[in-house]
Amino acid sequence: MHDLINMKKINKVAILGVGLLGGSFGKALIKNKLAKKVIGIGRNKSRLRKAIMQRAIDEMSLDIRKVKEADLVVISTPVIHIEETLKKISSYFKKGSIVIDTGSTKAGIVRAATKYINHEVYFVGCHPIAGSEKSGVDFSTENLFNGSICVITPVETTSKEALLVVKTLWEQLKAEVVMMSPNEHDRVIALTSHLPHFIASSLVLSAVKEDKNILALTGKGFKDTTRIAASSPELWIEIAAANKNNIITSLKIFLKNLNLINNYIKQGNFKKIKELLYKAKELREDLN
Amino acid sequence: MHDLINMKKINKVAILGVGLLGGSFGKALIKNKLAKKVIGIGRNKSRLRKAIMQRAIDEMSLDIRKVKEADLVVISTPVIHIEETLKKISSYFKKGSIVIDTGSTKAGIVRAATKYINHEVYFVGCHPIAGSEKSGVDFSTENLFNGSICVITPVETTSKEALLVVKTLWEQLKAEVVMMSPNEHDRVIALTSHLPHFIASSLVLSAVKEDKNILALTGKGFKDTTRIAASSPELWIEIAAANKNNIITSLKIFLKNLNLINNYIKQGNFKKIKELLYKAKELREDLN
Repeated sequence: MHDLINMKKINKVAILGVGLLGGSFGKALIKNKLAKKVIGIGRNKSRLRKAIMQRAIDEMSLDIRKVKEADLVVISTPVIHIEETLKKISSYFKKGSIVIDTGSTKAGIVRAATKYINHEVYFVGCHPIAGSEKSGVDFSTENLFNGSICVITPVETTSKEALLVVKTLWEQLKAEVVMMSPNEHDRVIALTSHLPHFIASSLVLSAVKEDKNILALTGKGFKDTTRIAASSPELWIEIAAANKNNIITSLKIFLKNLNLINNYIKQGNFKKIKELLYKAKELREDLN
Repeated sequence: MHDLINMKKINKVAILGVGLLGGSFGKALIKNKLAKKVIGIGRNKSRLRKAIMQRAIDEMSLDIRKVKEADLVVISTPVIHIEETLKKISSYFKKGSIVIDTGSTKAGIVRAATKYINHEVYFVGCHPIAGSEKSGVDFSTENLFNGSICVITPVETTSKEALLVVKTLWEQLKAEVVMMSPNEHDRVIALTSHLPHFIASSLVLSAVKEDKNILALTGKGFKDTTRIAASSPELWIEIAAANKNNIITSLKIFLKNLNLINNYIKQGNFKKIKELLYKAKELREDLN
């Protein structure tokens, strides 16, 4: 039944922003024959051509109005552009079509979608947790979502039928779907995704405090811990802006925990430090 | 010439503490035929037997006095035991033998070695930066040091000849040798290795602040950033004790950097955040 809904409804898919996530989505659709045609829409001709060469999309267009042909529209532009994109193109969506986004913040985007999108078009907010420090279609792969989590953030006005189609689609891409409200998503993801970025960057900046050559003396631990500091600064200031209050709360929680350890070290209270390290170790080992 | 010194001098090697580092050292020596015999010395019979099965050592002994047969003694016990081990066994070392350690703090250990070891025995402090969140001989590999950094920390009294032998030996294991004073080592490594551990643990503890299930919503970024939180708490409180002041200084530097970003986020000064993230990105990308 799930398969039927998908197969019948989704013929043409339009992807706005064919980067790491959009490109991977296109590659997975094409590879798994989940759509008859995938159209990439963007502003940069040579990047779209590259996406065609890599079979991330079948066709390209520089005209945003091209979304009107699509049964499913995937908005994978940088987070900062999603709300304005929704506003700009909302009048072009085909009646009955489904619109999703892949932005890593959700409250503002879902609010904008509710405001701008016609009630005959079905928006479902999505956040596939599958990014990395890399960006661009060159790093996209058909397997990116395989084994990853995709958070879907329905609200009261979300169509149950569209929700099921979108959920099934992510599951066909082998993602595990988790549902929560946009606000809950933004609060949680500030802790698990946004906070680590600012920590990783601060750690790199701290290590070179006195001498840049210090970085030569780093092992696997430092490299793992700071890998995401190589991410796109543009993306992360957009996210900081979009999820500002939750990030500030997360930083407060983190600083409290680190200051606790800091004080125990100063006091030489190694028993207490050991308790905290054990708790963290157990939690981390549960992860994988 | 380098090869000659090694090949001639090192017949028997004793490894005290056959865990991740000691076991990897033994496996590399045996595999590369850099010693005629490798003796593992420890307190746990079944672990030593396992080390023999895995060809990390050729022979085992529960008697610490066995070091008297060795041309090279490698002390790879937990950091907290190295100083007392040096004190306990210093009278058994063979005249003319070389003694190294693999501890991740250096000032206290080198001081203890200078104090306890006879002038006819040659101590050279070493820190192969090749650990991971794993510990024990089961995770040891003959290639662990291949491509890694090994810091050697000579002091005024260190024999130039012994230093050359030890340097050559690490290079034969394909490590890149860096020399610095024990104090400089401890200051630097607090920033690049010790600090990240307390940060990673604090991050895990922060993520579960309200709900343990939040960890299900973590992606590759969080996993990378917190991987070392799964390390041995015993090891890390030992290190916190041994390098307390440098770790406190490192935490101060880190907290200053993170608070700077925190304040910029609060102020909405995204231009400044972007500058910092760019600086961190460039530095991190230089790493590999």
